[in-house]
Amino acid sequence: MRILSGIQPSGKLHLGNYFGMMKRMVDYQENNELYAFIVNYHALTSVFDAKKLQEGTFNAACDFLALGMDPEKSTFWVQSDVPEVTELTWLLSNVTSMGLLERAHAYKDKVVKGIPATHGLFSYPVLMAADILAYGGERVPVGKDQKQHIEIARDIAERFNATYGETFVLPEEDIEEEIATVPGIDGQKMSKSYGNTIEIFADEETLRKKVMSIVTDTTPVDEPKPIENNTLYEIYSLFLNPAEKEELKDRFLTPGLKYGEVKKELFGMIWEYFRPYREKRKGYANDRGEVMNILQKGANKARETASHYVQLARKNVGLYYWDK
Amino acid sequence: MRILSGIQPSGKLHLGNYFGMMKRMVDYQENNELYAFIVNYHALTSVFDAKKLQEGTFNAACDFLALGMDPEKSTFWVQSDVPEVTELTWLLSNVTSMGLLERAHAYKDKVVKGIPATHGLFSYPVLMAADILAYGGERVPVGKDQKQHIEIARDIAERFNATYGETFVLPEEDIEEEIATVPGIDGQKMSKSYGNTIEIFADEETLRKKVMSIVTDTTPVDEPKPIENNTLYEIYSLFLNPAEKEELKDRFLTPGLKYGEVKKELFGMIWEYFRPYREKRKGYANDRGEVMNILQKGANKARETASHYVQLARKNVGLYYWDK
Repeated sequence: MRILSGIQPSGKLHLGNYFGMMKRMVDYQENNELYAFIVNYHALTSVFDAKKLQEGTFNAACDFLALGMDPEKSTFWVQSDVPEVTELTWLLSNVTSMGLLERAHAYKDKVVKGIPATHGLFSYPVLMAADILAYGGERVPVGKDQKQHIEIARDIAERFNATYGETFVLPEEDIEEEIATVPGIDGQKMSKSYGNTIEIFADEETLRKKVMSIVTDTTPVDEPKPIENNTLYEIYSLFLNPAEKEELKDRFLTPGLKYGEVKKELFGMIWEYFRPYREKRKGYANDRGEVMNILQKGANKARETASHYVQLARKNVGLYYWDK
Repeated sequence: MRILSGIQPSGKLHLGNYFGMMKRMVDYQENNELYAFIVNYHALTSVFDAKKLQEGTFNAACDFLALGMDPEKSTFWVQSDVPEVTELTWLLSNVTSMGLLERAHAYKDKVVKGIPATHGLFSYPVLMAADILAYGGERVPVGKDQKQHIEIARDIAERFNATYGETFVLPEEDIEEEIATVPGIDGQKMSKSYGNTIEIFADEETLRKKVMSIVTDTTPVDEPKPIENNTLYEIYSLFLNPAEKEELKDRFLTPGLKYGEVKKELFGMIWEYFRPYREKRKGYANDRGEVMNILQKGANKARETASHYVQLARKNVGLYYWDK
């Protein structure tokens, strides 16, 4: 199965990203053909600072490579290194009714949140459709908020095929219903916009402080601790196998447990868990040439696939003025 | 002065096109740097038939080459041979407010006329802006109906420069106020959509019939003929220098003139006027390889200019993740 996944170049990775998406993506590599790319074109809808975008892109590449993205097994590249998708965006635009885009929730939601109401933001789903169709993506794992975008991509593909003849694979969404929502240090969903994240590549002191500031309840030490809606318990559990989790549960339910002690343990656990990735990441961050090399090779692989679909689409709409 | 001009690949040229736009464009070549391209990407907003677009593109190339487009003096190419403009369209989209596009008249007008209300049609002005800015167009000669599109292009360029730093030349519109409106055979403005055109490369019999069916008034032969709002007089005049025009006027004002005779003369005049162009056109139409060769060379020249602006824009928005 060819699986397609876009990665936002939006800054420092946290536990929510890691357990919500990245681990899953890395796992996909085992039994699927993974196409994963850093969506710097899409990021332009909200990032208007070249340096920030540039660094965000490079950092996202380092993060993913360190955490297990395998450029031999998968195709891993930066979106703008295959500009053919923007041409495909234009070709798709002409079979995309305005109504279809006007019904998109994400546009309205983002505008409400203060992202500028630009034509780029409005066209976001068409570029996304081009990204999916250019690579013949069969399955696109997305959160519920992106479900409509995949439906739009499929609508556009159907309309294109009906207008110009069979050209594109119809993509299927793969809604990740069962994704664990990772709580942030304040108990809300962990999210950069809530400022409650635990960054996985933070330095030791920052990480310790973050973990120590996880909000806990006021149950006295000599009473059993609740495990429902217990942020500390939930975050700790992410790192445990079922047997270990059972053991943690026993400890919480046994009077005497001190939250402060558990936080110290958790800090040590996170620090150790990410140690090998941290080392690997440092290696990439210090070798920009190597990272670029990997991304360029990825772009070349991606372009080969994209060329097939984009050239077929060009031909089918009549852009070649000679027989091809 | 660098002058930019888009050519619709929309079928058979008529006297209105020739005297309204083409002759002027050919004349521009003398003292300006002319960039002229066949807008097949834009045509996709209304042409959904590959064969028709393909032939329309090739025919437009033959027409323009035959009528004096000089590929040595000017840059002449097919829009989609420089797909970089679609990438630039995306970059510009992110500084194009939705309000700017929503205020565009042409979109609404076209939808009223039955062209599908697609995202492509809505985005038309952004692709047009990309075409102008990618080639550093300083002056864009357009009819009044396109004035707003040039203003939009300038707005987008200003906004881009303000957001990301100086990147683009601000284009100026050059509204062709004084363009002669050529009447069709029924006296209305000559236009394909009114079915009243005289095609310049029609075969002899078709041309003769068209000219003979120019609508005239019922003034008796032995009376002077009016020259105001006289379609036959106006069309005939297009082919005359001022002295000849004076002579024609005298003939019209002198009793005895027979419209039928004048139509026969006019037919002969048109047929002879376009004879050399017709011969030249036949040569191109029979040598597809040569036309492609000219267009490919044009595309290479165009791409050199576009690369400068598109790469600068890519750099300024932050798409390069290394220092460049």
